[in-house]
Amino acid sequence: MKPGSVDTLLRELTAELPPEVVVTDADVLEAHRWDQAEWAPAGTPGVLVRPASTAQVQAVLRIATALRVPVVPRGAGSGLSGGANAVDGCIVLSLARMNRVLEVDRRGMFAVVQPGVLNAAVKAAAAEQGLWYAPDPASWEFSSIGGNLATNAGGLCCVKYGVTGDAVLGLEAVLADGSVVRAGGRTMKSSAGYGLTRLFVGSEGTLGVITEATLKLRPRPPPATTLLAAFPTLVAAGVAVTDIMASTRPSLLELMDRTTVRAVESHAAMGLDVEAAALLLARSDAGGQQGAEETAAMAAACEAAGATFVAQSTDPAEGDLLMQARRLAYPALEKQGATLLDDVGVPLSRIAELLSAIERIASERGVLIGTFGHAGDGNMHPTVVFDRNDAGELIRARAAFDDIVSAALSLGGTITGEHGVGALKRPFLGEQLGEGGLQMHRAIKAALDPLGILNPGKVF
Amino acid sequence: MKPGSVDTLLRELTAELPPEVVVTDADVLEAHRWDQAEWAPAGTPGVLVRPASTAQVQAVLRIATALRVPVVPRGAGSGLSGGANAVDGCIVLSLARMNRVLEVDRRGMFAVVQPGVLNAAVKAAAAEQGLWYAPDPASWEFSSIGGNLATNAGGLCCVKYGVTGDAVLGLEAVLADGSVVRAGGRTMKSSAGYGLTRLFVGSEGTLGVITEATLKLRPRPPPATTLLAAFPTLVAAGVAVTDIMASTRPSLLELMDRTTVRAVESHAAMGLDVEAAALLLARSDAGGQQGAEETAAMAAACEAAGATFVAQSTDPAEGDLLMQARRLAYPALEKQGATLLDDVGVPLSRIAELLSAIERIASERGVLIGTFGHAGDGNMHPTVVFDRNDAGELIRARAAFDDIVSAALSLGGTITGEHGVGALKRPFLGEQLGEGGLQMHRAIKAALDPLGILNPGKVF
Repeated sequence: MKPGSVDTLLRELTAELPPEVVVTDADVLEAHRWDQAEWAPAGTPGVLVRPASTAQVQAVLRIATALRVPVVPRGAGSGLSGGANAVDGCIVLSLARMNRVLEVDRRGMFAVVQPGVLNAAVKAAAAEQGLWYAPDPASWEFSSIGGNLATNAGGLCCVKYGVTGDAVLGLEAVLADGSVVRAGGRTMKSSAGYGLTRLFVGSEGTLGVITEATLKLRPRPPPATTLLAAFPTLVAAGVAVTDIMASTRPSLLELMDRTTVRAVESHAAMGLDVEAAALLLARSDAGGQQGAEETAAMAAACEAAGATFVAQSTDPAEGDLLMQARRLAYPALEKQGATLLDDVGVPLSRIAELLSAIERIASERGVLIGTFGHAGDGNMHPTVVFDRNDAGELIRARAAFDDIVSAALSLGGTITGEHGVGALKRPFLGEQLGEGGLQMHRAIKAALDPLGILNPGKVF
Repeated sequence: MKPGSVDTLLRELTAELPPEVVVTDADVLEAHRWDQAEWAPAGTPGVLVRPASTAQVQAVLRIATALRVPVVPRGAGSGLSGGANAVDGCIVLSLARMNRVLEVDRRGMFAVVQPGVLNAAVKAAAAEQGLWYAPDPASWEFSSIGGNLATNAGGLCCVKYGVTGDAVLGLEAVLADGSVVRAGGRTMKSSAGYGLTRLFVGSEGTLGVITEATLKLRPRPPPATTLLAAFPTLVAAGVAVTDIMASTRPSLLELMDRTTVRAVESHAAMGLDVEAAALLLARSDAGGQQGAEETAAMAAACEAAGATFVAQSTDPAEGDLLMQARRLAYPALEKQGATLLDDVGVPLSRIAELLSAIERIASERGVLIGTFGHAGDGNMHPTVVFDRNDAGELIRARAAFDDIVSAALSLGGTITGEHGVGALKRPFLGEQLGEGGLQMHRAIKAALDPLGILNPGKVF
């Protein structure tokens, strides 16, 4: 933007929008510079807008287009890749005030929600009708549906129930020029036209601003049975994962490596096996006798793969105790220092190789890396732990973070399984997509946002 | 194309491709004018090409781009919407020779296949590794994966396992200019960049030619238990569907209306209740005791909704007998005359209203309409039966077909649940998408196929 044009921008915004929508307070702007990716660059916004309706989002985008001002859409600010980090002079477009559940249709099995509503509120609204909104990113209590959609967020239950995109029946979005588009609808299936809902999902605010979503609800699954197993080698754990996935339908299949287990144990003394190379936690929600049988089959797969310890329980309270180790994984690692939380995916058959590569990287870079994550999807969160006050260690930690991404790519994997590319992973996307894929991204971006005002500098 | 340019086209193609790839025999061209949508218009192709590799597909598209010749991609020709119908002077690009399963990775739980391979061959290759490729369009024994991808084909098991798009991990496609793009990969999850796999899936050959697909495999589910129920009213059947979907996870939930039941009964004398307003067929593949319990819960939901007859069986042979009625639905209707097979979807809660509207349309238009389909997805196949030799009846049949599409739209539904838009439903797409959605389609099409050579006149 040219000098002086912030004044023009504010004049236009305040002329079109109610006063509470347009925020210029410096402290508030400062608080809207970053999401949770403090390592990714962030500029200083020119203004924060907090629209309360689709019409107000349209007004903001029409003004942004007219004045060529970049717009950075923002949900709850819980993103981990800098997808909501501001750029200098931008409009930060917060969807926080569009936070209503508009409709829950029990017989139609869908909910219509605004983007600013928290995932937890959608789950609660569904539960009131005896139904279930499945997607459960770890941030579900404080992340918004808009952010979940923007990153195609995952979670623990995706191994059985799919990611956020799998729960989207329809969307309303506002394009860069202020026009409104509806994609999908309220039906469970449709082959009518291009898969536009899936194009907006995961596009991290670079193609449009999602202003409404129709989400698929499901019957609530029966109480889960739980399994915990310890493995002497990473290869054995990897074999157990693929054997479980090939023979059963776990509703959760999580892994923690030795570094993570030791962090948890020193944090909470749960009696975990700190000599094990990895622990697996698995659940079945098949229900009743079948749930018990499925858990027994998973236990047998673990034993056949060489597990040194297997415990299972059909009792929900005992199951929650077993799950506690996994819940403490990230908090326990955070206790050990500053962290860089990575998010990579590999084909299911390559998990052990990824974990070995991470051990090698930790050793080569001289940093601690604890790895945990969604083994049943091949999606891991290697977490580099370092001393924030040691400049050399910070440099080595960031190098380790990059090494992990490269290792995932070399195993035929992805640079991000569920957090999104944002600003943090942007340098790596070309390597994953190739020039053809990158060129196709540019073509679609240019077609829908020809001025490039939507979340510039993110994704690619 | 200008006069004389067919010669130029043939010269270019034969110069670049082996002789067996370029086919000009008039009878063969005639056989490649239509898919199964004989009611949709079809032109006469200038040439048929049958490439055996991605490189040959690239060569064809580079020539087509250079000469501005339209290209109509074609799988097994089993499509029901005219998506593969030729246009005058076009290149029909058959993928039939690219019919290999390139890789089945048991531990990675995916298969890499060429587009011309039949769905049945993918299922067989997966089964050899003890795994399962879920998508099961009714045409699974004779439709190709490329066609399944192009239409985002559904089937009976989608109610639990999703449509074709839900089983796609990655794709390779050739764009109009001959460049190759890879989308997705071999991981179960990825948030890296735009959802390009989902953009190609369902795009009916208008954005690119899919030359390879990486498909997700699953463990084979346990043997299913089966339920058959008869309902005195459409409303009662609709209530049973929504209650079953809200409380259980059927692996199949199919409906047949009275007209269809009577056609089946007169075809095969199975002792079905020809006075019932509708029959429901449901299955659970939860397995063992849980499967029996889930089937019992579905039976209870049917009884609570007012079913006059409920039969269930855990015996696979008995279950197959119950399923026989559903399998005969379309063949039995075809015995009664020429048919127009429709494919519409509505929100789950509106199924009874759709069926009532169809009854009204049949009465108003004076034609027979038998409706069956995937009730658990709200996706129905109203089938207009008429006398092919009665010109007036044909006109009324086509009017009824259009009325059904309008009825689905007025109930918040979709013009196609799983067959695709093709040429047949093209006039209706704008009504479903609205001007904004249509404009977004045009923008994406123009970005990826600026000359508009890929399958022109289809979808929108």
